[in-house]
Amino acid sequence: MSEHSSPDRPASERIATRIRHPGPFETGATVRLDADRAHHLRHVLRLAEGATVALFDAAHGEWTARVSAYGKRDATLEIGRCRRAAEAAGPDLWLLMAPIQRDRLETVVEKATELGVTRIMLVATARTQGGRVNVDRLGAIATAAAEQCERLDVPAIAEPMPLEAVLRAWPADRALIAAVEAGEARPVAPVLQEMVAIPGGAAMRGGAVLVGPEGGFTSSELDALRKLPFLCRVGLGPRVLRADTAAVALLACWQALAGDWTAGGEDRRPPFRG
Amino acid sequence: MSEHSSPDRPASERIATRIRHPGPFETGATVRLDADRAHHLRHVLRLAEGATVALFDAAHGEWTARVSAYGKRDATLEIGRCRRAAEAAGPDLWLLMAPIQRDRLETVVEKATELGVTRIMLVATARTQGGRVNVDRLGAIATAAAEQCERLDVPAIAEPMPLEAVLRAWPADRALIAAVEAGEARPVAPVLQEMVAIPGGAAMRGGAVLVGPEGGFTSSELDALRKLPFLCRVGLGPRVLRADTAAVALLACWQALAGDWTAGGEDRRPPFRG
Repeated sequence: MSEHSSPDRPASERIATRIRHPGPFETGATVRLDADRAHHLRHVLRLAEGATVALFDAAHGEWTARVSAYGKRDATLEIGRCRRAAEAAGPDLWLLMAPIQRDRLETVVEKATELGVTRIMLVATARTQGGRVNVDRLGAIATAAAEQCERLDVPAIAEPMPLEAVLRAWPADRALIAAVEAGEARPVAPVLQEMVAIPGGAAMRGGAVLVGPEGGFTSSELDALRKLPFLCRVGLGPRVLRADTAAVALLACWQALAGDWTAGGEDRRPPFRG
Repeated sequence: MSEHSSPDRPASERIATRIRHPGPFETGATVRLDADRAHHLRHVLRLAEGATVALFDAAHGEWTARVSAYGKRDATLEIGRCRRAAEAAGPDLWLLMAPIQRDRLETVVEKATELGVTRIMLVATARTQGGRVNVDRLGAIATAAAEQCERLDVPAIAEPMPLEAVLRAWPADRALIAAVEAGEARPVAPVLQEMVAIPGGAAMRGGAVLVGPEGGFTSSELDALRKLPFLCRVGLGPRVLRADTAAVALLACWQALAGDWTAGGEDRRPPFRG
């Protein structure tokens, strides 16, 4: 789905990679990349001098930049034109997730970034397993995913906290959707549709989803969740989903029904000729 | 989300793992597991004699079974009660997916199984990369995921075929939803909602989704897709999704809006107190 390598685009316009770098930039200005970034461009992506990349930051936007020279421990880029100014922020969507096995958690961080999550909160529950969480590494994965998926911003990721403490300090105007076993809750689609239809629902364009650990929530955790006025439990069908699957599925449903996947494109014909 | 290790359940009832095994079974009968399965129970899961597992197959249903003895190269199980008879089949949902990098493709197969896909068709497109696909290994991953997510059946996975050939032989009454870049298509949710609302839409409970390779479809492929009457292109929002993310997201939307995630549970209160 990436457009980076699209052969349909003139070579002069081809953006070989996107790099997060604090801006703003002026056309014609020079930017120096550090040794790690220079190494990545030269030896991993094998970009020749003259190649075009993009630099972006959330506050200012995105610019093209030409690799003008590689040094021994750096690279010099020359700023081209502004590709886009920083846009109005998208929906403010948080993911609350019990830490799971390392590689599965890393996949969730990558997918959550692509799916537009603005904040990832790791929450410890009674049945949460898994060892120490390396938040720096998760942040690097989120940054790489933001570069790849053409986001300007990167989700914030905090050190794990007990779920109870997070819920005690919860902002009452932020709707929280928790995935639980299907028999215990309403299906996800009508809940999201009703949420969007509520008068003043626009105030809820900031939302959050919660996914428990592989063992699920305990009965007493479920009792506590049931009492929270800002929380709604939803089911994700009859099969038992892994926590990582539930997180990606619930985020996709949220964006499709309540988030920024609702804006349209060109194809206005009816979906199927019955 | 798994219930396997739930401490809230009496120990006698705890199902340590689910094993796909051809049935049907009679209560009190004896079943022998082969060396691989016996090794897995004894040395990987470390189940003692007396532990309870479940055996299932798609045609007959699922039974509890007690590990009565380990042999040198086998294990003997004693069949207990029937947990559930084979149910009416769920929606018949196919995934058409261009092969991608091996570990990402394996994750898609696991997730597609959890998300209820009945058939996975690997389709080669102009920009499809990646080497040989090991269909047997993908089948083993699907079987393990089916065991874990409490499905009775396992999705069928075929050797890769050219997309063009698959579409040429396509059954005209099976709606196919293709993920394309958001600017080129309508958003996914209204398309699925309209599809379900079409008179005779019940005939379309069998559906399919199509996700292209990492490089996207070429212009001429997109032109060809546009002409197919059974195909509808949808967008998945403003960010560039990886192919594996797009597959999981589109399947989740399909199940939530057109599939078997629409059946309800107990929680009938309005979703949020405004």
